[in-house]
Amino acid sequence: MTPAELLLKDAAAMAQAVRSGAVSAVALVQASLERVAATDARVNAFTDVVRERALRRARQVDASLASEHGVRTRELPLLGVPFAVKNLFDIAGLPTLAGSKIEREREPARGDATLVRRLESAGAVLVGALNMDEYAYGFTTENSHVGATHNPHDLERIAGGSSGGSGAAVAAGQVPLALGSDTNGSIRVPASLNGVFGLKPTFGRLPRTGSYPFVSSLDHLGPFARTARDLALAYDAMQGPERLAPRDPGCAQRPVEPLLTSLSRGVQGLRIGVLGGWFRERALPEALAAVDAVAVALGAVRTVELPMVEAGRAAAFLITNAEGAALHLHDLRTRAQDFEPLSRDRFLAGALLPAAWVARAQRVRRLYAQQAARVFERFDILLAAATPCAATPIGAEWIELNGQRLPLRANMGVLTQPISCIGLPVCAVPVWGAHASLPIGVQVIGAPWREDLVLRVAAALESAGVVQAPVARLG
Amino acid sequence: MTPAELLLKDAAAMAQAVRSGAVSAVALVQASLERVAATDARVNAFTDVVRERALRRARQVDASLASEHGVRTRELPLLGVPFAVKNLFDIAGLPTLAGSKIEREREPARGDATLVRRLESAGAVLVGALNMDEYAYGFTTENSHVGATHNPHDLERIAGGSSGGSGAAVAAGQVPLALGSDTNGSIRVPASLNGVFGLKPTFGRLPRTGSYPFVSSLDHLGPFARTARDLALAYDAMQGPERLAPRDPGCAQRPVEPLLTSLSRGVQGLRIGVLGGWFRERALPEALAAVDAVAVALGAVRTVELPMVEAGRAAAFLITNAEGAALHLHDLRTRAQDFEPLSRDRFLAGALLPAAWVARAQRVRRLYAQQAARVFERFDILLAAATPCAATPIGAEWIELNGQRLPLRANMGVLTQPISCIGLPVCAVPVWGAHASLPIGVQVIGAPWREDLVLRVAAALESAGVVQAPVARLG
Repeated sequence: MTPAELLLKDAAAMAQAVRSGAVSAVALVQASLERVAATDARVNAFTDVVRERALRRARQVDASLASEHGVRTRELPLLGVPFAVKNLFDIAGLPTLAGSKIEREREPARGDATLVRRLESAGAVLVGALNMDEYAYGFTTENSHVGATHNPHDLERIAGGSSGGSGAAVAAGQVPLALGSDTNGSIRVPASLNGVFGLKPTFGRLPRTGSYPFVSSLDHLGPFARTARDLALAYDAMQGPERLAPRDPGCAQRPVEPLLTSLSRGVQGLRIGVLGGWFRERALPEALAAVDAVAVALGAVRTVELPMVEAGRAAAFLITNAEGAALHLHDLRTRAQDFEPLSRDRFLAGALLPAAWVARAQRVRRLYAQQAARVFERFDILLAAATPCAATPIGAEWIELNGQRLPLRANMGVLTQPISCIGLPVCAVPVWGAHASLPIGVQVIGAPWREDLVLRVAAALESAGVVQAPVARLG
Repeated sequence: MTPAELLLKDAAAMAQAVRSGAVSAVALVQASLERVAATDARVNAFTDVVRERALRRARQVDASLASEHGVRTRELPLLGVPFAVKNLFDIAGLPTLAGSKIEREREPARGDATLVRRLESAGAVLVGALNMDEYAYGFTTENSHVGATHNPHDLERIAGGSSGGSGAAVAAGQVPLALGSDTNGSIRVPASLNGVFGLKPTFGRLPRTGSYPFVSSLDHLGPFARTARDLALAYDAMQGPERLAPRDPGCAQRPVEPLLTSLSRGVQGLRIGVLGGWFRERALPEALAAVDAVAVALGAVRTVELPMVEAGRAAAFLITNAEGAALHLHDLRTRAQDFEPLSRDRFLAGALLPAAWVARAQRVRRLYAQQAARVFERFDILLAAATPCAATPIGAEWIELNGQRLPLRANMGVLTQPISCIGLPVCAVPVWGAHASLPIGVQVIGAPWREDLVLRVAAALESAGVVQAPVARLG
């Protein structure tokens, strides 16, 4: 198998090939850089390629394999695996853009984000930074500063957002693994539209040190991949509390519980419900069909209502709006014209919100979390579509849901936002209908800290052939 | 010893007397009710006495001791000990006033607050509810609806607040044990002015279910007593996560670590620092003398600066103001005239604060907590006065601190607010100067979750005779 062919497999296969000596890390990373060079003029997933760094690091991996430390190096789970990160992760020597024009003027980052360091410690090789909605405030990655990211499965369509570059890079076969962030759906929406797996962990489970914040009380980081196993590999390499200050104060100091080992345990005995009400009413038939296909495969016949969803989503909106704006007050006052036109007005509005509304929103969120906890006394897993529809054309502005004409860009998150609001772990799994040319994701939702169950379900669906993440042909 | 004499001892002695049969729980509770009846016209600590409930419960304790369960009942640590709670704790059958006039119209509570239940499960007997600043927004318990609580050591002076009734009831010998809440100093300030011990635990350590909230992100509950050992006894009876929903979502699910057993370990080897800067500049000589007496007794010679104190206190102010007001928006809009005149304007102002300020305040708080964590790498315990001065006359409005004439009521918390802002555990210990007629408290401050060290220091100071909590003579 050539390195270019290997690049279209999953990360586990790549690491195994490097481990066995069938391919060098340098050759694999070069294949990734070449595929980026060949495809990214069309996809526009990457905003920076760190070619020299990547090749240097790959050479180190190869040298370490050949050295006296070779035995230990061979154990690394992501040996030689190329990956890329949303450009809100710090990369030493580059300014951390977070999709903006303004941050281009800032100092370059002095070091790598914690999760970047951890993936590289597991043998992976960073190849670049990925496009996103400015300051993560969007669901479409129609970035006016650098252009939209295009969906690799249909270049006229959006890749979703805000981690659109991350979803597209994995779907385009540029890298098998990418990192994104999810505040209201920013991992699950692009995973859905690009037909890849995306994991939004429990709030507070992965440390955020060295990433550009959007809304501290709602921000999650997580991986994209083309298999459930790759998600588990990446996740296990990234999880665990930080030992050194400064660290993410929102990250729980909990012991590590490896996910990979639980993947193959199957779904026998799991109590799986399908979310009704809000989650059915705000999904088009293509999204409902995707959920139903997953439900049938899992034998899930019970529908369940999550109470307080609408209030919870409103709370997430208010908290996002106010906290998001608070980070940029000075720039909003002095240079509003430099902000992304698609989100500028929302930021300005957020700067004017009264604190009392946000305090109430936080209270709603706590009550809602309590209600959801009761649902999880009866269910282990809940299912819902990740987006109300498949990828829409770039520039589209409206969608009709539940009999209402609604702004499309905000409503791409209508099904994800109520879930992240209370920090539940979710794997978005990619479903392709029998005749569908575009994928759509289904959220496999667990109780807090039950990533293990969520990934078990994802792996079982993958084994059964119900979900899959093929590399886009790209002409 | 008569029950009335026993009532002036500590809770441990009372429980032992009940355990040994030297006194009945009924007699002890009656002694408490009689002392309340005899003294409270002057002190005004109680807003409700639950006489029938208390006697019924005391009879149950006595009956249980005499029954086949007697052996197990005898093991209860607070057997027959009368206690009372700030009137923001739910007591089944009474409306939870939280110091207000408005809440008198609400439904009575259906059950007891979690901490009330836990103390009663440990054998203690609730005798009533205690006065406080309205909605806990004050440091003086000059409650306009029911009148000020008077300091038992000088009836012309304030008892401090907002848990003024709790501090005064313990100082007046009405009960050996009381519960209060502390958002910015509301346990430590009245402990200081009434010359009793008060423990403000680590934020998130005691469950708040069934208590009226003031500022969820800053509220702590904790005990008052006349000995360090009684604090430990009460604390051990109250700590531990709740098993049943609904529970306090802000309460950490950590295992119980009994404090009582660590009390006698002494202070050898502890690194103890005296807080300088802000904490010296904003304390009158009487407060500095109290800190110095404690420092000398502990051999603490190093002064240490806590960075970001001023910013931290400002953050606590903003968060308190906004979150506090958010709870009462509807009433503030429709019936502002029914609020306490001393805090009404602050509540109204809080309702107008922009969310962006509060978001920034929460960020400041996180940074400040990180800075403080570094100080605790070098120190185990920090010392500071609990109030800038001893109890002031009721109605006093101004104080001069650091060369500035400042509003007294807000500044009674000038030394406590920066500590609770980051949730550190504190025991306020009562110091009486050689010629002083009024006590003043010193804060013994620990790193998060190190209540054990804090109480060890308090117990050592008590053994050395440096701190003590005598019952007020009351004429």
